[in-house]
Amino acid sequence: MKWTRRHLLDIESLSKEELIHILDTARNFKDVGTRKRKKVAALAGKTVCNLFVEPSTRTRISFELAATRLSADVINFTAEASSLKKGETLKDTARNLEAMKADIIIIRHMAAGAPHFLARFLDSNVINAGDGAHEHPTQALLDVFTMRERYGDLTGANVTILGDILYSRVARSNIWALTKLGAKVTLCGPPTLVPPVFEKMGCRVTHRIEEAIVDADFINLLRIQHERQRRTMFPGIGEYTTLFGLNTERLAMTKPTATIMHPGPINRGVEIDSEIADCERSVILEQVTNGLAVRMAVLFLVTGGRIKKGTD
Amino acid sequence: MKWTRRHLLDIESLSKEELIHILDTARNFKDVGTRKRKKVAALAGKTVCNLFVEPSTRTRISFELAATRLSADVINFTAEASSLKKGETLKDTARNLEAMKADIIIIRHMAAGAPHFLARFLDSNVINAGDGAHEHPTQALLDVFTMRERYGDLTGANVTILGDILYSRVARSNIWALTKLGAKVTLCGPPTLVPPVFEKMGCRVTHRIEEAIVDADFINLLRIQHERQRRTMFPGIGEYTTLFGLNTERLAMTKPTATIMHPGPINRGVEIDSEIADCERSVILEQVTNGLAVRMAVLFLVTGGRIKKGTD
Amino acid sequence: MKWTRRHLLDIESLSKEELIHILDTARNFKDVGTRKRKKVAALAGKTVCNLFVEPSTRTRISFELAATRLSADVINFTAEASSLKKGETLKDTARNLEAMKADIIIIRHMAAGAPHFLARFLDSNVINAGDGAHEHPTQALLDVFTMRERYGDLTGANVTILGDILYSRVARSNIWALTKLGAKVTLCGPPTLVPPVFEKMGCRVTHRIEEAIVDADFINLLRIQHERQRRTMFPGIGEYTTLFGLNTERLAMTKPTATIMHPGPINRGVEIDSEIADCERSVILEQVTNGLAVRMAVLFLVTGGRIKKGTD
Repeated sequence: MKWTRRHLLDIESLSKEELIHILDTARNFKDVGTRKRKKVAALAGKTVCNLFVEPSTRTRISFELAATRLSADVINFTAEASSLKKGETLKDTARNLEAMKADIIIIRHMAAGAPHFLARFLDSNVINAGDGAHEHPTQALLDVFTMRERYGDLTGANVTILGDILYSRVARSNIWALTKLGAKVTLCGPPTLVPPVFEKMGCRVTHRIEEAIVDADFINLLRIQHERQRRTMFPGIGEYTTLFGLNTERLAMTKPTATIMHPGPINRGVEIDSEIADCERSVILEQVTNGLAVRMAVLFLVTGGRIKKGTD
Repeated sequence: MKWTRRHLLDIESLSKEELIHILDTARNFKDVGTRKRKKVAALAGKTVCNLFVEPSTRTRISFELAATRLSADVINFTAEASSLKKGETLKDTARNLEAMKADIIIIRHMAAGAPHFLARFLDSNVINAGDGAHEHPTQALLDVFTMRERYGDLTGANVTILGDILYSRVARSNIWALTKLGAKVTLCGPPTLVPPVFEKMGCRVTHRIEEAIVDADFINLLRIQHERQRRTMFPGIGEYTTLFGLNTERLAMTKPTATIMHPGPINRGVEIDSEIADCERSVILEQVTNGLAVRMAVLFLVTGGRIKKGTD
Repeated sequence: MKWTRRHLLDIESLSKEELIHILDTARNFKDVGTRKRKKVAALAGKTVCNLFVEPSTRTRISFELAATRLSADVINFTAEASSLKKGETLKDTARNLEAMKADIIIIRHMAAGAPHFLARFLDSNVINAGDGAHEHPTQALLDVFTMRERYGDLTGANVTILGDILYSRVARSNIWALTKLGAKVTLCGPPTLVPPVFEKMGCRVTHRIEEAIVDADFINLLRIQHERQRRTMFPGIGEYTTLFGLNTERLAMTKPTATIMHPGPINRGVEIDSEIADCERSVILEQVTNGLAVRMAVLFLVTGGRIKKGTD
């Protein structure tokens, strides 16, 4: 297929073909990270700006390394000590970065829709690195990339997402990606955080973990984030772990081939027992590795890069 | 002309010929930012250190990108969490950076004269990125560069600077640059902040905005910075906007060719109305773009770079 | 000799031959900093991660420049705003960086043994940039490198270390390096901070500065760090300066060839008088320069680099 998008703003608006095209491109880039000389010249002389209004060291570093391995120059612009604090609007900050000829602006922002807002007036390519509770498209891409490496075509695969679905951009982007690729998605967590409305997105909703994990091919555990969750809707940590934490007893109920995933950083002993995080069925670190490949692919495609041949 | 300075400390000590030589060099560099591969090898293997004791994300990024586009390696040294906090003197910090073989030290400091102080004992090239209320030479250079792109030779051009002149290093550097290039400078703002003493620098001083803008070819609006301005000398924000804010009513009094400038970040609705900031007569974003060209020229010249031919 | 270590965790476990091999390799790298183009391609395409859980701008910049001059790509991961704050363990953070294919992880941590802990499970090369009060091996390497440039073979050289020895990783690493190289080490400071137990490491212990400095070839003054020192064990600053500060009167008691050293940042007027810091016998800035050469050598060796011929 011919890739035509200049931005990556969400998963919702991508076609199945576009999704697969990104994943195929990422496969071509994955081996770059294993070379002795981990670089290709694809973005040499281009400028990438990490505009992280909401801080995230981990995602920023993944994008920074992805850009660096494509030979781009990277500028980090964080909200601390910046003019955003001095009352400058996001629009003016972004237009300033563009005036400095930033080719690609990677934005993380606490407001849903911030990347779409930038894309409406910028000539730079815009990549969404997480916007509020809306989407986190590259996280979903690395998740489905990892699943496809294990499972092949995801049509009919059972994928369970566990945790605070309502406020999770990771869940939302995963649901879009998985349903487009034909997987069957089950959502599970406390009723306040996993309301029945998600059934309209084509998911099964359950509040009993045993039911959610028994036939799962993949179990994706979301991070419990106290800083985000509304107190009134969220049970205590201890109660969450008792009801929804993945422990060895529950792991024994799953299919022996079920794969354990987590977007990180993990809370050992909260949403996942420590030994499960480190067991052979966990691909948590492989997800991190694949994050680089997927982000290289996205940077490459939005700037007009072409791969030689499709492989899927 | 032959450029001989190893530092750029201020505008005051530059000759008209030196000023024009920087601006001509910048013109040669401006197109680099528009290339697909935005780099030249001029400073390859050289180390540039951003020593920003007073924080400024925007100016730091502009210098960082300028150095990167000349292929230099850039180190960012900010006062936070640094040894300057642990009681090390500025002199010792700078000598340490030089001992690490930093070729160029770009300094921003809250104390006037800090760059001159460094230049007295360092072998590294020193560039002033703003020192207290004294000077901000690269801001003035990008301002006059932008004016010359619009107007040509500035002899006889009417330039009005509006705002807190007394405590503004931007104003001070602009006054030096503009008067050396033959422009006629008008300063306007509250009497406490625009005292008659500026007439000795060859400027016209007025406290009535209508008088200041009516015959202006360029109107340069300074940012209102509460953190800097002394409370006792500064009217309230609302009062400032009423008396000196540039709104559409006042814009209608200006020449139709009058150009609107601002060093940024802008306070929409305070010193400038939002629609004026975005109108066709505003060159605010062009200033940002030109900042890179001017800073590339300065980095290039102080390290002994030579352009092939003069163009002015 | 053939270098076989994949990590640099401490000085204690190095043989004399390994120490000398690093110092010889550093000598070969020292001239890179003086070239017009300060780069070699040795680590091109490799990724170096500065994992600084305890902040240190100065050491981080030295490592960053060393890696950059070897053409590596550098990622800075500091504890501020990072997932370490969100409750992620050091082990998980490090494994994440490795999953992103960081070839070398340079760690500074407030806990003694943190680098050894990482080295047990990481495939990446690990370099200790200071762990608690345990060791700071590259500081000791640059110190003995500087001494050997002045003195040649250190067998029989008298080296005095002055200050808070008990809690100093710099002192500890220096003692290991110096005794392995045959130097005679004298430790001096308040009795609470220089207990007799150090005699078991082969050092002479004294609490009278005159006795410590009279026959010294090198006097290494440690930084007085209030943030670290336990109040109950440390005299007041004024008292420390009176009893142990190096002033001109005391300098007059030393051999005319005695060299003054300090790991920096210096407290002028506390552990060292200002004029002594800047006098001809001080090599404090030369130490900073040598730090780069030594760190380049370490980065080069742990990743399997080979120098052409030994020179010692």
